[in-house]
Amino acid sequence: MRYTWLNNRLLPTAEALIPVTDRGFKYGDGVFETIAVHGGVPYQFAWHMERLRHGLAAIRIECGLSDIQAQCRQLLEKNAVRDGLLRLQVTRGSGGAGYLPDAQSPPTLVIQTLPMPQPPQAPVSLWLSGYEKISPRALPVQYKTCQGLNSTLARLEASEHGCFEALLLNGQGHVTETASGNIFWLHDDVLHTPALSCGVLEGGMRAAIIRLSPYEVREVAATPDALAGADAVLISNVVWKALAVNRLLPTSYQWKSEAIVENLRRLLAEDINGYCKGHAGDWQ
Amino acid sequence: MRYTWLNNRLLPTAEALIPVTDRGFKYGDGVFETIAVHGGVPYQFAWHMERLRHGLAAIRIECGLSDIQAQCRQLLEKNAVRDGLLRLQVTRGSGGAGYLPDAQSPPTLVIQTLPMPQPPQAPVSLWLSGYEKISPRALPVQYKTCQGLNSTLARLEASEHGCFEALLLNGQGHVTETASGNIFWLHDDVLHTPALSCGVLEGGMRAAIIRLSPYEVREVAATPDALAGADAVLISNVVWKALAVNRLLPTSYQWKSEAIVENLRRLLAEDINGYCKGHAGDWQ
Repeated sequence: MRYTWLNNRLLPTAEALIPVTDRGFKYGDGVFETIAVHGGVPYQFAWHMERLRHGLAAIRIECGLSDIQAQCRQLLEKNAVRDGLLRLQVTRGSGGAGYLPDAQSPPTLVIQTLPMPQPPQAPVSLWLSGYEKISPRALPVQYKTCQGLNSTLARLEASEHGCFEALLLNGQGHVTETASGNIFWLHDDVLHTPALSCGVLEGGMRAAIIRLSPYEVREVAATPDALAGADAVLISNVVWKALAVNRLLPTSYQWKSEAIVENLRRLLAEDINGYCKGHAGDWQ
Repeated sequence: MRYTWLNNRLLPTAEALIPVTDRGFKYGDGVFETIAVHGGVPYQFAWHMERLRHGLAAIRIECGLSDIQAQCRQLLEKNAVRDGLLRLQVTRGSGGAGYLPDAQSPPTLVIQTLPMPQPPQAPVSLWLSGYEKISPRALPVQYKTCQGLNSTLARLEASEHGCFEALLLNGQGHVTETASGNIFWLHDDVLHTPALSCGVLEGGMRAAIIRLSPYEVREVAATPDALAGADAVLISNVVWKALAVNRLLPTSYQWKSEAIVENLRRLLAEDINGYCKGHAGDWQ
């Protein structure tokens, strides 16, 4: 879109350029947040700011965020965003000797708005990825670090197999999440999702679904065969909200997830609508 | 330094800027090479180009490299580099829906020269990292992907414990490498280094040391206690060449590595000198 914040300057997006020395570009050394904007209001904004702060602490970047809400509000107005995505990224800036950062270098802060992509309108297929999910002992994977190559390779692999998304297991063979979202499955009226300790992004829609679920929710460590007998499988992120899954390739697992997921989608839509109306005063 | 190649344009470095939409910046979605330049000649240039090609294939980026040697030569001349570093980075460029790339978007190619950092002049200490090395089943770690956050966090942690570098283990508890280089240890006249299958960068200096070693070389899967009885420990990369290690904290392991490492350093220096003199005609 037309304008982008770069380090406290609101610039025409074509002028929002960073040096090739930025550690974001060299090493993916940063964190980001992607927030759904509906009716001009970023859904769960305070929650995302809290996750951003925790992510920054986990990767030891100090970045003042006291103006962040005002900056986001101004950008949404400037770009006339009613429904879209708000993306914030903080990197460690330039400097340092190789991987060892220079403690004096200021971070880089980018705030953008993006159009809301159209989510699939029909249930989607997953590919059981040959790539293992990065361990939470290697990276703080519960936050959105700018380490996106594992997800990129898994999505490319899924795409080559004709699937919409990839499902990744951890080193113990437990289900973690898809390349771009969290996963849930309903079995015997219990909604299951991988526990954060499995090495899972703490997604905003994951949190909302857990909060809103009409079913008991269990956070579990489960192998993919736990999905075989599920009544429904869904994946969630800021774009899809809740998206029905109909099969997992190359296994023969299939599900008729639509009705159950449609119910969760309705609950999410009501919550989003309520939140964004309730917080409109903070933003306009 | 003064000039930088960016996508086939040789620019003043201050003008070598990339858009915030570049997947290198957003996700660390790329690979790079760092090459030692001595007497104006990049050491093991063909080897690095081969690793770059394999790295690009591993992460599925297509990038024509037919002009790369001419571009590097021109940059070394323009920046009048006799001794320094040549750094090449290729990212997947902009575009795509989240992690899923857009197959049509051209990659981003950056070629820079950098001053050669001064390596430590005395043996260094290592910190046994609390961060686990990223698994080769999650990422093609034998290549220099732009996924540098694990190494960054490990170096910060080591630094906070007063150590020069971090030693990382894999998920099986085996020694892999340091945050920024490979590791070797001499025991009973056998030079040991972790096997690539442990999840190790295939470093250029690692390859040179294996080629030049006056000792039998064994590539092994070993836990850190294998280092306890070693006669010498050294770490290697393009800056350090071979660097003596005197202790591993928080263990009590200590070594008097200097004499043995000095011998390897001399062999490396002769090889570098011979290579760069032998290839001077290719470059000047």
